[in-house]
Amino acid sequence: MQTIIDETIGIASHLTLNQPQQRNAISLQMVDELLQKLAEAEEDPQVRAIVLRGAEHNFCAGGNIANMLNAQQSDGGSDAYFHINRRFGELMERFNRTPLVVIAVLEGAVMGGGFGLACSADIAIADHSCRFALPETRLGLPPAQIAPFVVARVGLSQARRLALSGAKVNAQQALEIGLIHQLLDGPEALEGALQEHLGAINACAPGALATTKQILLDAAQVTDETALGQLLDGAARQFSRAIQGHEGREGARAFLEKRSPEWQH
Amino acid sequence: MQTIIDETIGIASHLTLNQPQQRNAISLQMVDELLQKLAEAEEDPQVRAIVLRGAEHNFCAGGNIANMLNAQQSDGGSDAYFHINRRFGELMERFNRTPLVVIAVLEGAVMGGGFGLACSADIAIADHSCRFALPETRLGLPPAQIAPFVVARVGLSQARRLALSGAKVNAQQALEIGLIHQLLDGPEALEGALQEHLGAINACAPGALATTKQILLDAAQVTDETALGQLLDGAARQFSRAIQGHEGREGARAFLEKRSPEWQH
Amino acid sequence: MQTIIDETIGIASHLTLNQPQQRNAISLQMVDELLQKLAEAEEDPQVRAIVLRGAEHNFCAGGNIANMLNAQQSDGGSDAYFHINRRFGELMERFNRTPLVVIAVLEGAVMGGGFGLACSADIAIADHSCRFALPETRLGLPPAQIAPFVVARVGLSQARRLALSGAKVNAQQALEIGLIHQLLDGPEALEGALQEHLGAINACAPGALATTKQILLDAAQVTDETALGQLLDGAARQFSRAIQGHEGREGARAFLEKRSPEWQH
Repeated sequence: MQTIIDETIGIASHLTLNQPQQRNAISLQMVDELLQKLAEAEEDPQVRAIVLRGAEHNFCAGGNIANMLNAQQSDGGSDAYFHINRRFGELMERFNRTPLVVIAVLEGAVMGGGFGLACSADIAIADHSCRFALPETRLGLPPAQIAPFVVARVGLSQARRLALSGAKVNAQQALEIGLIHQLLDGPEALEGALQEHLGAINACAPGALATTKQILLDAAQVTDETALGQLLDGAARQFSRAIQGHEGREGARAFLEKRSPEWQH
Repeated sequence: MQTIIDETIGIASHLTLNQPQQRNAISLQMVDELLQKLAEAEEDPQVRAIVLRGAEHNFCAGGNIANMLNAQQSDGGSDAYFHINRRFGELMERFNRTPLVVIAVLEGAVMGGGFGLACSADIAIADHSCRFALPETRLGLPPAQIAPFVVARVGLSQARRLALSGAKVNAQQALEIGLIHQLLDGPEALEGALQEHLGAINACAPGALATTKQILLDAAQVTDETALGQLLDGAARQFSRAIQGHEGREGARAFLEKRSPEWQH
Repeated sequence: MQTIIDETIGIASHLTLNQPQQRNAISLQMVDELLQKLAEAEEDPQVRAIVLRGAEHNFCAGGNIANMLNAQQSDGGSDAYFHINRRFGELMERFNRTPLVVIAVLEGAVMGGGFGLACSADIAIADHSCRFALPETRLGLPPAQIAPFVVARVGLSQARRLALSGAKVNAQQALEIGLIHQLLDGPEALEGALQEHLGAINACAPGALATTKQILLDAAQVTDETALGQLLDGAARQFSRAIQGHEGREGARAFLEKRSPEWQH
């Protein structure tokens, strides 16, 4: 890994964007490395959560434009811009849909693609150092791959406002519009909150978490009463399977015996 | 009725979950009784609103797991878990789509299925005693039937955060994320707010309310410009019918004559 | 123009509803004039933003019912109510989808159709004089054409609460539920904020703004993973085209040369 630092501690795979001189702007290599590490984490039975952050108190300043220009120049004729951009979209799709719980720990710059990446997390926490913006249009570009994930996170209305002016948002405003879920006072408090969230995830059954995330993502795409009925049928089958399965039986026993379930370390 | 108390006062059918020793956890019988009472309220021309609450200062602590285990054991071979779970989903669908205006009055525990039920209400009011959570995954289970209604109420982002950690939310936080619409200071203030909301509903024409609720629910499911155009065509037909119908004519006359319309008691 | 005042200043077409004696209630003529002026603004290469407001410190009190009754009476047999209502829906669709950035400057009454019109804006700013409500059902009518736009702006949950009680919302509450994006202290502060937003839009490339708005609107309608992939493919093509096009090249050069891009006046 050249652009990220990865470390697995307990139930969490910690992935740190590590190009601090570019404020962790995303290059094609970084996308590839993040996708590889996500795949490894999904295969690791010990891992239930991904913790995403940036080195040296910036989360991520967006796409690395210089990296894109180089890629295009060294690419004989085919459309490197398209491929780099779309590959970043694949990263967004994969982090958004992974059965693991994704926590984004946000500091400093959370811009453009970094803003998008933060929106793929299940839990986003930040401190007051954060500055959020979608500055793409000021460079003559659309925020392309992140658009659906920004809309899913803050709603269409805030997404329109932010993307169509490029205006900066501070951490308090980010909390108010639902871009982040919790606002902390500095790096120590941020670390404490992260540990609390990991503790909460540790108390939840891993299989049930994965099932729940998939049902929620599917539920957000229901478009009529027939599709709703089908979703609820499937969810009831998953409920029945879970309550009769290992996790459900262990959960019920632990509850009755007033002890922690065995999945809790 | 063995598990709920029902009383019709003025324009409202009041349904109170009444298993306080289980903090009003939902059993199959309670689901059946709620569905029966909802059907009766919809047939009663006097009734325009449903008021849902729980006895003895808890709204509802979730599903009654003991009740489910019993049902499964006494069920020779078929999948009682599936049927109980899915039947609760039917309750969610019916309360969400009823043409009556549903008000949830929330106190104490609003957990799991109770959290879901609160999300089916058109107006949700609470006092500071409330504690909200989706603790299912801590028992090894997914929050299955309530998922689409939680997503519709608080958005996908907050739904993911809450369901994937099982964390508790207090009443102030519930207000901030739109889980409730109004936060009051204790039972008396809660009762006062309820009466105000019922007064507001009383000022609205019953047929127009039913039409409006159906248009809003359908509007949330529009997926392209063609579907949008069709929805707007249908809504314009309903508007035209309403303005020429009894309610529309009475509404215009009452407005011009500066008096209350005849539907207002 | 008999019902609106229009003036183009710099990058913005300013459209002011000008029927102050009816608190700028919307008549059929006003709808026609707004649609005509929007079309002209879209054709004007200088214009990138629409500023919508109401004369004499009211934005818009809703539909002009007297105007509708007259139209129906002078209409030999066909359904004027349907056509007037649907024509207003066309206005909503057009203002919602225009590639220009729409800013609503809100004061005083923002009711019914005016509430809807405010929801079509990309950026909505208001001062404390604002009163918002969806009072239609109190007149026996459904809020028909505005429903999908209200749902898109404040979410289904708040839309249900507001439309099913007709209750008033003040400016602070409107900010909290995302109905407006910024709350200012009186007309001068409102004007200052408007100029800031126009300055921000001026810094953004016009073509990139139009592309971005279309991607965001489409992103909000994605209903499954296949459609998401198609949207991201299309967005990557638009990104590639933009970065190689005039705006993208100028944006990169201006950034490197630490100067304003040529589109910024």
